[in-house]
Amino acid sequence: MDGSVETAEAAAAAMWQADRACQALGMELLSIGVGVSEMAMTVQESMVNGHGICHGGYIFTLADSAFAYACNSRNLVTVAAGARIDFIRPARLDERLIASASVVHQGERSGLYDVAVNDASGHCVARFRGNSVTVGGPLVEDATHA
Amino acid sequence: MDGSVETAEAAAAAMWQADRACQALGMELLSIGVGVSEMAMTVQESMVNGHGICHGGYIFTLADSAFAYACNSRNLVTVAAGARIDFIRPARLDERLIASASVVHQGERSGLYDVAVNDASGHCVARFRGNSVTVGGPLVEDATHA
Amino acid sequence: MDGSVETAEAAAAAMWQADRACQALGMELLSIGVGVSEMAMTVQESMVNGHGICHGGYIFTLADSAFAYACNSRNLVTVAAGARIDFIRPARLDERLIASASVVHQGERSGLYDVAVNDASGHCVARFRGNSVTVGGPLVEDATHA
Amino acid sequence: MDGSVETAEAAAAAMWQADRACQALGMELLSIGVGVSEMAMTVQESMVNGHGICHGGYIFTLADSAFAYACNSRNLVTVAAGARIDFIRPARLDERLIASASVVHQGERSGLYDVAVNDASGHCVARFRGNSVTVGGPLVEDATHA
Repeated sequence: MDGSVETAEAAAAAMWQADRACQALGMELLSIGVGVSEMAMTVQESMVNGHGICHGGYIFTLADSAFAYACNSRNLVTVAAGARIDFIRPARLDERLIASASVVHQGERSGLYDVAVNDASGHCVARFRGNSVTVGGPLVEDATHA
Repeated sequence: MDGSVETAEAAAAAMWQADRACQALGMELLSIGVGVSEMAMTVQESMVNGHGICHGGYIFTLADSAFAYACNSRNLVTVAAGARIDFIRPARLDERLIASASVVHQGERSGLYDVAVNDASGHCVARFRGNSVTVGGPLVEDATHA
Repeated sequence: MDGSVETAEAAAAAMWQADRACQALGMELLSIGVGVSEMAMTVQESMVNGHGICHGGYIFTLADSAFAYACNSRNLVTVAAGARIDFIRPARLDERLIASASVVHQGERSGLYDVAVNDASGHCVARFRGNSVTVGGPLVEDATHA
Repeated sequence: MDGSVETAEAAAAAMWQADRACQALGMELLSIGVGVSEMAMTVQESMVNGHGICHGGYIFTLADSAFAYACNSRNLVTVAAGARIDFIRPARLDERLIASASVVHQGERSGLYDVAVNDASGHCVARFRGNSVTVGGPLVEDATHA
């Protein structure tokens, strides 16, 4: 996948500034690169059911967010067209989850990305595969000079 | 799919009581039956990005919740093993979304469920298909006499 | 989905004529309409393993074929971008399988289609959901006058 | 994933002997290991449409076969519960395709496997992710002494 780390960082910074949803969930963007990203989220009280098990929707949301930053890293407005998630083991209250996204294939318009969601010990919580579609031009205009 | 509406309602009531995650998102369980459920959620400020577009993770979370109530409606503890979502059109701030889940197939242990997420006008926002696996016994003991 | 049955039939006829793969498997195109199709295939010796169980790949191939005819029925060259299949019960030697495809959503460029694969008794063998992408112009030029 | 290469080889040999479907398609089992397998298939006349493009069903069938050998490699009868395939680029008549399957996660009963289908130059033709379910005991009884 073409692109530079500087451009990926500039695009991510622009996305993050406007990204109230990820901010509200306490996510952190740990790293960003060309076709890759890493995000973290800690399972909060509001994310669990009565047994202290994290709602799968929040695990998906973390994975989907990492996917979004990875597929926008070439600085072209790109959205999720669809995704599949497989849940491997439950996540519990206060666990810190790490989602690592990487490009499998990026065409001109459509892309395929994998995301692994692991707990702090590196055990797999879920695997996600997302289909992206590029729908617009640059997120940031002067990324190459940022 | 075997079961009675009374049992489905008792199982759903027990789930709902403990379901802080769905409650915290302002979801409403509109209806429940054998293998079916309907849930609503309104897109809030904390769910959107800077363009007022709902994060796909929240759409998934709504669909996944409707799926959970539908696949637990036969009163056996059942969890999501995986799911695929296809995003059709964006949802916006303040839109009320309705997720309608229905069983496609329920075996002894594994099940397949469809969820349509529509806006208030009935336009399709997303389609979800979930794989469930039954992992335990009854959610409520005296459901048949509830 | 816009279109006429006449156009759908003309597009299907043009596809079928060139479709050595479906012909070689003994498939029959039972019906075609706007966004819908029905195809049949009988499980042959060459499709089964030593236990007389049909290879899942052939069940997918039947579903994928029905999908192809349905998503090309608006007479614009359209290909499969991806698909998910869930296998419900095995198909056996000599069973006649029917795949019924129908459009879930068709945008300008991308589409979502469901296919149910049933046995002759109407029992579900598999469920398939396919993502299509329109990549070209008309399959047949004078479809409206065909 | 637990297991030995000897057991994986014995299980694969037993499967292959009965596997008329894979044999009829001219597949070759290139390698087998614990949770992994590699299979090859050349695109034949009977697999293509009028434009010389391989029917996606045959690409799925190759991937699904590699998946089957990988998920049965621990010598417990295991079947495909479902799978998702994403088509990246077309395969053409006479192209030799290689499917490489590897375990993502194997639980006691359910497993998740990735398969990459590449052409002879190593370009990606399709990506496949399959869900397996173990339904029985050993394929071969004396695998450890084989």
